[in-house]
Amino acid sequence: MKPSSSTSDLFRPLFGDPIVDAEVGDRAWLRAMLDFERALAVVQARAGVVPHEAARAIVAAVDSAVPDPVSLGVRATASGNPVVPLVRDLAEALPAGAKAYVHHGATSQDVLDTAASLVAFRALRPILDGLAGVADECERLAIAHRDTLIAGRTLAQQAVPTTFGLKCAGWLVAVDEVRDRLDEVRATRLAVQFGGAAGTLSALGDAGADLVDRLADELGLVAPVLPWHTDRTRFAELAGALGSAAGVLAKIAQDVVLLAQTEVGEVAEADGGTSSAMPHKRNPVRAVLVVASAQRVPGLVATLLAAMAHEHERAAGAWHAEWETTTELLRLVGGAVHGTRELLSRLEVDVERMRRNLDLTGGLPLAENVATRLAPALGRVEAQDLVAEACRDAVAGGTALRDALIADTRVVEHLSPEEIDDALDPSAYLGSAAAFVDRALSAHQRKAER
Amino acid sequence: MKPSSSTSDLFRPLFGDPIVDAEVGDRAWLRAMLDFERALAVVQARAGVVPHEAARAIVAAVDSAVPDPVSLGVRATASGNPVVPLVRDLAEALPAGAKAYVHHGATSQDVLDTAASLVAFRALRPILDGLAGVADECERLAIAHRDTLIAGRTLAQQAVPTTFGLKCAGWLVAVDEVRDRLDEVRATRLAVQFGGAAGTLSALGDAGADLVDRLADELGLVAPVLPWHTDRTRFAELAGALGSAAGVLAKIAQDVVLLAQTEVGEVAEADGGTSSAMPHKRNPVRAVLVVASAQRVPGLVATLLAAMAHEHERAAGAWHAEWETTTELLRLVGGAVHGTRELLSRLEVDVERMRRNLDLTGGLPLAENVATRLAPALGRVEAQDLVAEACRDAVAGGTALRDALIADTRVVEHLSPEEIDDALDPSAYLGSAAAFVDRALSAHQRKAER
Amino acid sequence: MKPSSSTSDLFRPLFGDPIVDAEVGDRAWLRAMLDFERALAVVQARAGVVPHEAARAIVAAVDSAVPDPVSLGVRATASGNPVVPLVRDLAEALPAGAKAYVHHGATSQDVLDTAASLVAFRALRPILDGLAGVADECERLAIAHRDTLIAGRTLAQQAVPTTFGLKCAGWLVAVDEVRDRLDEVRATRLAVQFGGAAGTLSALGDAGADLVDRLADELGLVAPVLPWHTDRTRFAELAGALGSAAGVLAKIAQDVVLLAQTEVGEVAEADGGTSSAMPHKRNPVRAVLVVASAQRVPGLVATLLAAMAHEHERAAGAWHAEWETTTELLRLVGGAVHGTRELLSRLEVDVERMRRNLDLTGGLPLAENVATRLAPALGRVEAQDLVAEACRDAVAGGTALRDALIADTRVVEHLSPEEIDDALDPSAYLGSAAAFVDRALSAHQRKAER
Amino acid sequence: MKPSSSTSDLFRPLFGDPIVDAEVGDRAWLRAMLDFERALAVVQARAGVVPHEAARAIVAAVDSAVPDPVSLGVRATASGNPVVPLVRDLAEALPAGAKAYVHHGATSQDVLDTAASLVAFRALRPILDGLAGVADECERLAIAHRDTLIAGRTLAQQAVPTTFGLKCAGWLVAVDEVRDRLDEVRATRLAVQFGGAAGTLSALGDAGADLVDRLADELGLVAPVLPWHTDRTRFAELAGALGSAAGVLAKIAQDVVLLAQTEVGEVAEADGGTSSAMPHKRNPVRAVLVVASAQRVPGLVATLLAAMAHEHERAAGAWHAEWETTTELLRLVGGAVHGTRELLSRLEVDVERMRRNLDLTGGLPLAENVATRLAPALGRVEAQDLVAEACRDAVAGGTALRDALIADTRVVEHLSPEEIDDALDPSAYLGSAAAFVDRALSAHQRKAER
Repeated sequence: MKPSSSTSDLFRPLFGDPIVDAEVGDRAWLRAMLDFERALAVVQARAGVVPHEAARAIVAAVDSAVPDPVSLGVRATASGNPVVPLVRDLAEALPAGAKAYVHHGATSQDVLDTAASLVAFRALRPILDGLAGVADECERLAIAHRDTLIAGRTLAQQAVPTTFGLKCAGWLVAVDEVRDRLDEVRATRLAVQFGGAAGTLSALGDAGADLVDRLADELGLVAPVLPWHTDRTRFAELAGALGSAAGVLAKIAQDVVLLAQTEVGEVAEADGGTSSAMPHKRNPVRAVLVVASAQRVPGLVATLLAAMAHEHERAAGAWHAEWETTTELLRLVGGAVHGTRELLSRLEVDVERMRRNLDLTGGLPLAENVATRLAPALGRVEAQDLVAEACRDAVAGGTALRDALIADTRVVEHLSPEEIDDALDPSAYLGSAAAFVDRALSAHQRKAER
Repeated sequence: MKPSSSTSDLFRPLFGDPIVDAEVGDRAWLRAMLDFERALAVVQARAGVVPHEAARAIVAAVDSAVPDPVSLGVRATASGNPVVPLVRDLAEALPAGAKAYVHHGATSQDVLDTAASLVAFRALRPILDGLAGVADECERLAIAHRDTLIAGRTLAQQAVPTTFGLKCAGWLVAVDEVRDRLDEVRATRLAVQFGGAAGTLSALGDAGADLVDRLADELGLVAPVLPWHTDRTRFAELAGALGSAAGVLAKIAQDVVLLAQTEVGEVAEADGGTSSAMPHKRNPVRAVLVVASAQRVPGLVATLLAAMAHEHERAAGAWHAEWETTTELLRLVGGAVHGTRELLSRLEVDVERMRRNLDLTGGLPLAENVATRLAPALGRVEAQDLVAEACRDAVAGGTALRDALIADTRVVEHLSPEEIDDALDPSAYLGSAAAFVDRALSAHQRKAER
Repeated sequence: MKPSSSTSDLFRPLFGDPIVDAEVGDRAWLRAMLDFERALAVVQARAGVVPHEAARAIVAAVDSAVPDPVSLGVRATASGNPVVPLVRDLAEALPAGAKAYVHHGATSQDVLDTAASLVAFRALRPILDGLAGVADECERLAIAHRDTLIAGRTLAQQAVPTTFGLKCAGWLVAVDEVRDRLDEVRATRLAVQFGGAAGTLSALGDAGADLVDRLADELGLVAPVLPWHTDRTRFAELAGALGSAAGVLAKIAQDVVLLAQTEVGEVAEADGGTSSAMPHKRNPVRAVLVVASAQRVPGLVATLLAAMAHEHERAAGAWHAEWETTTELLRLVGGAVHGTRELLSRLEVDVERMRRNLDLTGGLPLAENVATRLAPALGRVEAQDLVAEACRDAVAGGTALRDALIADTRVVEHLSPEEIDDALDPSAYLGSAAAFVDRALSAHQRKAER
Repeated sequence: MKPSSSTSDLFRPLFGDPIVDAEVGDRAWLRAMLDFERALAVVQARAGVVPHEAARAIVAAVDSAVPDPVSLGVRATASGNPVVPLVRDLAEALPAGAKAYVHHGATSQDVLDTAASLVAFRALRPILDGLAGVADECERLAIAHRDTLIAGRTLAQQAVPTTFGLKCAGWLVAVDEVRDRLDEVRATRLAVQFGGAAGTLSALGDAGADLVDRLADELGLVAPVLPWHTDRTRFAELAGALGSAAGVLAKIAQDVVLLAQTEVGEVAEADGGTSSAMPHKRNPVRAVLVVASAQRVPGLVATLLAAMAHEHERAAGAWHAEWETTTELLRLVGGAVHGTRELLSRLEVDVERMRRNLDLTGGLPLAENVATRLAPALGRVEAQDLVAEACRDAVAGGTALRDALIADTRVVEHLSPEEIDDALDPSAYLGSAAAFVDRALSAHQRKAER
């Protein structure tokens, strides 16, 4: 019978990315496990630990193996992991003289930990490519909207003007930061595992330590100082980096959701989602799904961190808790990356509406500027209090801030109407916005050139 | 192409239960969604909201529908959920005159929330049955070992004697507590959802509110006061109850792991797991997998709680984050229940070893008793200090506590050798252990009779 | 030297409530610990387990004790908890003949677990009172705005009209649900703990079990079936209920933040917060702080759930992890309750703006209604597609939906201009909104009368 | 009135470290906030943005300020953070001509984010020093016990022999890994924040961007590409690194708890904790408290990750949720570091008991070795099955594995009694244990020399 019980087909496409999904699926895990067994035979033959003929037989068996995840999964319950039946199947496929040499000196955790590292190493490739795509979209938007005025909003209130380009530059910098960190984790923390039954490579005499380095070389993974069977910092750092990435993508997606609100309307998804009940809706579906994927990540990171205290030389549960959790983390971040890239590549930006919204309150977002210009004469606190009063008057009276200011003799004493108009011009109150965009673009450019 | 990307086949059997898995899988979700659409047509026909003929056509279409999760999953990405394509498919299968009446007045969230409630309602049946089985095993062990001496251990140190029966009675009470709570959540909190586009049932004029109650009746779920589309207390309470259950099962499984340690050896899994490297190992595999499943639960509960703040009349992400998370929670708790039941049903108990371990330190676990008997004469604190000194002497000198006590004139002044022997008899220092076991058994019996 | 290291003074007022804070502070914990010792002496005297004179001395010592948290905290590190030095101090204050009877038969966990239950029991009083106040505010708003039109918003897009009263009724129902659950937990789950060294009450012969019930009676807590030293379902359920409460409050506060956005402007905090830089800002400070407090709760709930697997008869760490975590949970939920009540009691509601926002898109939120009215003639899916097309035309052309509909012959064929106007009237498309408000008010009334 | 409500005095010493506590307390936060204001005035004077005289007045005011956390905390509720009243107090202390220049161009988040970075930067110093001390203890133990035999234990079962030195080397490598990561985060990720009202430094014309770099230089923090007010990767990475550190310390402490079990008895805390009920107990109190502190960390990390999606230019809650959470993370990791160092520095190691435990099962941990030696003749799987059978016979018959092997003709056919004895010698079956210890020591040495 069949995965009637799997929920993945129905919901998975919403929260995943087909390419990353393929790198973290059953077949990818099995391929990685077999890659370990193959590489082990190869380097052990080179080191003279197993006969060349046996190694060749093992390589052939691995290369022709078509492991069945369903069968292996069911048989895994006897020993608590799928390596035992996988190795048994492999051994059965070998000629008598080679049987003793498959999985030689290794334990299940060697296979699963190395496989997990390989799976993560491989899945991070499309994730990092996708993040590079996200960064490119951010860069494109930052360049295009370097000078596009938009209301800066703090605590959900319009604050002072900024540019949409700077908002996108902020996204860009954050995305580049998580790319750097994921790159680093991928290159320096994903290691081969090879320690044998309890981390001493007991079955290999004194030949073991050297084989660790050879295996790492063969598999393209890092060679660890020691077997790390009960030191889970590698996966903890991977989890942390994925958690950061999810947070950055959630920030972008949530900004899009907020900017796309009916009452704000500054951006839209070019082909927003439909509703089963409301024909007029253009839902920011991609952004919503990115938010959803990202919200599920912190709990999984916490699970991996809480599972770091592996008992003695192999954990009684904490290790087993990692497999699906790591898979799920990679899948969800993969989905969030994919969704964000799609989202940004098709983002419709309504420059007019951004400007209209900025004018919505008749100049309030420029109040700080007026206060700043009054401060030298009045003192900062007094100037702020005075302008705050004018703001309240404007709001209460339903008038523009300009009118309230001109009506206040204490203001007019220090600022002429022209100076007030000048202070209320948003494009003249952008501070270092453009300079900051340029800094972000330069940093991104430098990163690209590395 | 196919679920090459699903990890479920390979790892799922380790952490799940086939019966619960089947209740939370794609087909179960789709069945529940179709149950909603069917029930909706039925009650709307009864209420005169849709023509009987249309309702019959819808019922027939539902009954003959064989929805394809793969296709629906892919098409779900356009709208952000699988209900839109599911309803579209249903409508296509209907005669022209009935098309307008399928999903009448409903929105996707009505279908998905009701389906989630149905899925949980149905999956809780085998989970609760399994927990009843776990309780039965605990009861059996508590009865059999009501007077079996074992070291009580606190902070991982032998403390005072207790009975293995009381340990099992403690498990029993905890299991019955989470059964009560899960029963309560199942019976009182899993409700039908029907609110239409934004919770007003706008498309149904004033016929809506009554339909909510009819729908609940038809589906065997609770009728809510209001549509609860943005009030997620129901799923939060479900998550909390599942979290408690996982914690209780983890406690049992962890106790088994600890009692099964080579150096303790008081229990064993009758057919413990094998190791790929070590032929002599008899690993407590079931206990280990229960611990692993349970460790993954708190992070998922946190995800659901953190996703409670649904914006306005439908969340932009927090709702979508629930589907797979709830599914996974039910699956993992199902697996932990199943594993614990198996585990206890085959538990080998080594009564001899329990007693031998209790004697390991030459009477130290009875030190409290000696101190208690000295307290009337010396004062509690002084008595404790005196006995602690004797304990240190015994440990340092490698002698039994009895000898150290008899060698101390301050002790002998108040206690005769016979009184000391009496104070050092573990079976005479069990306090209310048996009474507590009986209380637990009675409470369990009363529950069974309810 | 002193609490220079405490961060609480500076940040605590932002996230707490002075009354709840006082119930969970050091003094409250110490009072509760002493309450245990006092009650223990009292019931043991009644049961003839300790002499009346000794009990009277203990009661007197407890009543005159002024324990110093700083000293106790420092001395706690030797044994790992503050009970050991507390009892030592108590014993020192006693006459020689009573020293042996203080803390008689008890262990530190008995004191700390009972104290934690008492602290929670007492802190839940103001929390529940505060939640009742929140419910009253919701009720007031639901009554006042039963028919106030507002845009229903799904996925952050205007969907169909609803009423502000129904939104508040939704809050009300959710608040009443968490009140019910917290009431239940408080009344049925907070129990006395009394098990002695390892849960057998070994030092009390066969007098122990009865004392558990007497103690519960004396302290006003639940009498457990068994000592629950390693069964943490009670605190897990407390945590779950607090987590639900936090989620409900976060939903209310987040709705307020969103409704208070400059571009929405439908509600405001009467005396919103000031900004250090921007004099015009009226920040929804209370709502923001409620959101912040609530966001910190799920992680703490997960911590408590993950700490449920207490080893053997006393956990080596998991128990100790509970104390500050439970305190913090109560504090943060207390703060969120307090903030929400304040927030709602001073909420300014701009009915005009609600209506204006609803008209912002020229009728789009009524598109569903038009589709519904066309469905009998065209089929549901076809009607939706047709209306969706008109919506797109209206948006693209910058016209009202009404104009786009009248311009479409396929629409006009089935609906007259009057019927179109009728379909576009939001007050006529509220479905069961008023009925639902009334249901919520009735349910709340019934609850109040219980 | 006073912090009667603070729980910190009573419980804090159990889970903290006085030195780290002092770096994360109210005074440390206030000092850091004032450091920002001071540095801002200094660099703005240098850049000609504020008059030198004003800057001098600000510096003097800062240097003589004695801010009261209680008063600031209470007044913070009006604006939602303590910066507003702090700056108001500072301005009041200034001469009229300087008032306008304090906090010039800054916003509350600039102060709080920079202060948080400074607090973390400073608290990480003792944390890193403490971790270096932990590493030194691990190194000492690894050297001293390089060849001390101990049972390697997997899934809580004795597996094959290893050395206590290798166990300590494993701790060492993990500790050095988290030191590297925390060092990196401290040096490269803790940055100054300076963006003004909404990240543009609007109030500073085009002088702003340059001031960011100057401020960083003045405060010894990193200069960011952009203001990172809504890019929380810096704190997310800090949290992740602290989470990893907690996990590593939990692993060490849990190993100690397990090794200190009465039935294992291989290590002990030199001055283990006392029990209020049991005078003989020598509890591994420090290890228990480290476990407890560490268990509370993952939930806090999840809180920070979940709070990364800051809305627009300043979050409405997610930002505020960081302050106490980050403080608590630093405090708990500080406590765990301190506890682990103490723990290891006083660890009593019972080399005899380690050996005795290894012999407990009559050679079973050497079963793998026997199987390995039989494999060439029999095939790996067959050899394992055969030895597993002998193991079962030995366990069932209560005999040593040696006897069971010699009784089996299929074994004796391929191995002589001498070869069997040789295979059963644990010191001859340590594989690369010593080599691995040496690798760890070299790596640690290289790190020390960097």
